[in-house]
Amino acid sequence: MSKRDIQFDQNGLLRHFLTIDGLPRQTLTDILDTAENFSTVGTQQAKKVPLLRGKTLVNLFFEPSTRTRTTFELAAKRLSADVLNINIQASSTSKGESLLDMLRNLEAMHCDMFIVRHNTSGAAHFIAEHVAPHISVINAGDGRHAHPTQGMLDMFTIRRHKQDFTKLRVAIVGDILHSRVARSEIHALNILGVPEVRVIGPHTLIPREASSLGVHVYHDMKEGLRDVDVIIMLRLQRERMLGAMLPSEDEYFIQYGLTRKKLALAKPDAIVMHPGPINRGVEIESAVADGPQSVILEQVTNGLAVRMAVMSMVLGRKQEA
Amino acid sequence: MSKRDIQFDQNGLLRHFLTIDGLPRQTLTDILDTAENFSTVGTQQAKKVPLLRGKTLVNLFFEPSTRTRTTFELAAKRLSADVLNINIQASSTSKGESLLDMLRNLEAMHCDMFIVRHNTSGAAHFIAEHVAPHISVINAGDGRHAHPTQGMLDMFTIRRHKQDFTKLRVAIVGDILHSRVARSEIHALNILGVPEVRVIGPHTLIPREASSLGVHVYHDMKEGLRDVDVIIMLRLQRERMLGAMLPSEDEYFIQYGLTRKKLALAKPDAIVMHPGPINRGVEIESAVADGPQSVILEQVTNGLAVRMAVMSMVLGRKQEA
Amino acid sequence: MSKRDIQFDQNGLLRHFLTIDGLPRQTLTDILDTAENFSTVGTQQAKKVPLLRGKTLVNLFFEPSTRTRTTFELAAKRLSADVLNINIQASSTSKGESLLDMLRNLEAMHCDMFIVRHNTSGAAHFIAEHVAPHISVINAGDGRHAHPTQGMLDMFTIRRHKQDFTKLRVAIVGDILHSRVARSEIHALNILGVPEVRVIGPHTLIPREASSLGVHVYHDMKEGLRDVDVIIMLRLQRERMLGAMLPSEDEYFIQYGLTRKKLALAKPDAIVMHPGPINRGVEIESAVADGPQSVILEQVTNGLAVRMAVMSMVLGRKQEA
Repeated sequence: MSKRDIQFDQNGLLRHFLTIDGLPRQTLTDILDTAENFSTVGTQQAKKVPLLRGKTLVNLFFEPSTRTRTTFELAAKRLSADVLNINIQASSTSKGESLLDMLRNLEAMHCDMFIVRHNTSGAAHFIAEHVAPHISVINAGDGRHAHPTQGMLDMFTIRRHKQDFTKLRVAIVGDILHSRVARSEIHALNILGVPEVRVIGPHTLIPREASSLGVHVYHDMKEGLRDVDVIIMLRLQRERMLGAMLPSEDEYFIQYGLTRKKLALAKPDAIVMHPGPINRGVEIESAVADGPQSVILEQVTNGLAVRMAVMSMVLGRKQEA
Repeated sequence: MSKRDIQFDQNGLLRHFLTIDGLPRQTLTDILDTAENFSTVGTQQAKKVPLLRGKTLVNLFFEPSTRTRTTFELAAKRLSADVLNINIQASSTSKGESLLDMLRNLEAMHCDMFIVRHNTSGAAHFIAEHVAPHISVINAGDGRHAHPTQGMLDMFTIRRHKQDFTKLRVAIVGDILHSRVARSEIHALNILGVPEVRVIGPHTLIPREASSLGVHVYHDMKEGLRDVDVIIMLRLQRERMLGAMLPSEDEYFIQYGLTRKKLALAKPDAIVMHPGPINRGVEIESAVADGPQSVILEQVTNGLAVRMAVMSMVLGRKQEA
Repeated sequence: MSKRDIQFDQNGLLRHFLTIDGLPRQTLTDILDTAENFSTVGTQQAKKVPLLRGKTLVNLFFEPSTRTRTTFELAAKRLSADVLNINIQASSTSKGESLLDMLRNLEAMHCDMFIVRHNTSGAAHFIAEHVAPHISVINAGDGRHAHPTQGMLDMFTIRRHKQDFTKLRVAIVGDILHSRVARSEIHALNILGVPEVRVIGPHTLIPREASSLGVHVYHDMKEGLRDVDVIIMLRLQRERMLGAMLPSEDEYFIQYGLTRKKLALAKPDAIVMHPGPINRGVEIESAVADGPQSVILEQVTNGLAVRMAVMSMVLGRKQEA
């Protein structure tokens, strides 16, 4: 099952955006370059371009996420698209059949794009396999699998600060095991030619197949941060603190929380990233989150530009259809 | 109490759309012809016409229905109207007084149209009787009474496939007793001159006054389907399966589920319709729902054109006001 | 802590609208004059002006209020702004930290305006103190403190009927103690030069510091209404009926409900106002609420014009930025 195939149309243009895994470097570079063009829209007097006027985008959220839904909604509105928000309780579509019927109905209403969020890995891919030819699907996070727009906004942020990916040392810190964000980032960093990607975390939160992903595993944060150019902190799902996977929050912070002291081990111009929302005092110290090396809020701003870029690429493709 | 009167303004133009019952054939034909014009909007590059720009439409939903709300919202947005969604718990407007005060307030905000969904028969009519002269009301389903835009989208679908209503034999199958959809369809079919309308279902789900509606009642589905041009399946409210009204789902499917075998009794070019969402294996076999004679998804597409038509007719009327 | 300072930018232009308290008379007059210009938008064929096209407004509602949210949403849409609705459970932002992080995120998305509703007095002010320079904050009601757009729409309504504030006698009747609406009205009336403001209510519902607000306190409604030009009735929070603060609803109506008989004590051309929603038969008799002296629905209409005025003033200010 090649995921690359389904993401491109017969002309080789990006139709869906489901995962970064397997994409050619050129596609990633195209997204970053297009996002660069959109990055000024947010600061214009009228933050609006008519590119997707008359297009209908559906936020199909099977798990609630105000934050992510908001960024896609805002990106769509700035492209002048119409937005429908549909929140679906997993229960009401427990049968695959009725999910497909729902898709058929939205297609029949001439919707153009589905933004899919689901707690099951592969859900966006499943939907993309079953939609009509005029529909594009964007994965807004599926289980532990992928969150490709988050991955790309992180690449955009890194490129803005560091330009050349091929000279970087990047560390991702925290709960790698459960993180779709980390998985998308690792794929993107590899494809873009970053020579050294490190993951840092306790044994219980690093997946066993980590080394096959082309990353270096560290359990000692001080060792792992040494001389890196980019530090990506992950959000700790605090529900997981309870039980066997982790010691206490305090203990976690001592070992894997990013403090000014630990940050000093990285390169002096290292940037600090986090997908948000941050748990201050759990995975990151406030002085670092709000400090001069933090680019966390830039990531949010860049998220809009990257989402506008992906949306306009997958739908703009259809001009000739 | 003539429902015809309240639906028209003093110039004889359609102001509200509450029920099909009692409307002249010309009005129905006007709606179908207007919908024909809108049926291409959905396939345009930019699915947007500026007809209702600056108009404000309020979805007043007293019972939740994402599906129906979505179609009205989409139709309104494609007409460039502004949409407000208001979900009202029946409890908070238990007194007629506060409902009227809410209407007065929305009127004072210069809203133009109320799309009303309510589980009480007559609710949309009640609201239409009490709104200010500049407001139009569209019934999006009231109790067991009427769902006129659904009725008209079904007529639109039939006309597209069969052209001449005056030569048709139409069968409606299932829970006629509780179905506002069936009631609106029967009125529309009668007004448009369909010579033979049949209803098919168990004794417990056919209203006693059925024959007075000008329909032929069948309890044996095989008999009822013989030589029909159009089959309209109704959704079975599965909650009603429990208790005295119906035998088991399996038993119901055997007697009243539409299978390929039963479908073969109709004319070879008979079309199969369903208002959705469908219960596969309960009232309809998947092979039929997805088969070549099914026009179920066309109904969804046509629903947008018909709703755009009705909205533009009731508001367009006001140009001279 | 001067609240005046934070509401104005360095050029002396209105940037936030948090409270009427401390504003110069000229600012209030500017709002009223601007609202006068917008008051015709609602009756135009296309109720839409492009003033805030491309601006993004966020309804940040920490306590639910369909009614208030709707008026702000409608005002924003008529100004062609994009609207995001975010409902926040107080629980999920129990820590001030995460509230600030949420604000930082919305700022990073280049949102332009926050409409804030919160059950804690001072919440909108707190948020205004912490937002980035490009953001404006409008208070849509904070605890018992202020509801300044409601106060201004009431002033707009009074001016339309009575023209000259400096010759008026105004009575506010009901639960003054818990009313942010009353507080905003009292400040506005004082600033606009109304020589005599009266508050009428039971001892338990008049704040002790009332006289320091420059008002005359009455516990006997008949005495308090004598010869007034304007009567502003407040909504009685019926939850407060239970317990020690108030006798029964019937008893309250007898003493403080506005009846035709009591209304006759005011000037013959006195107007009757109420912020809505009204409790008929509790604080006001239906014959008065719907009677010739009632301007309650005009207040709703004027609310849109005033909110459009405030929004366009605080954002229009930025043209030169």
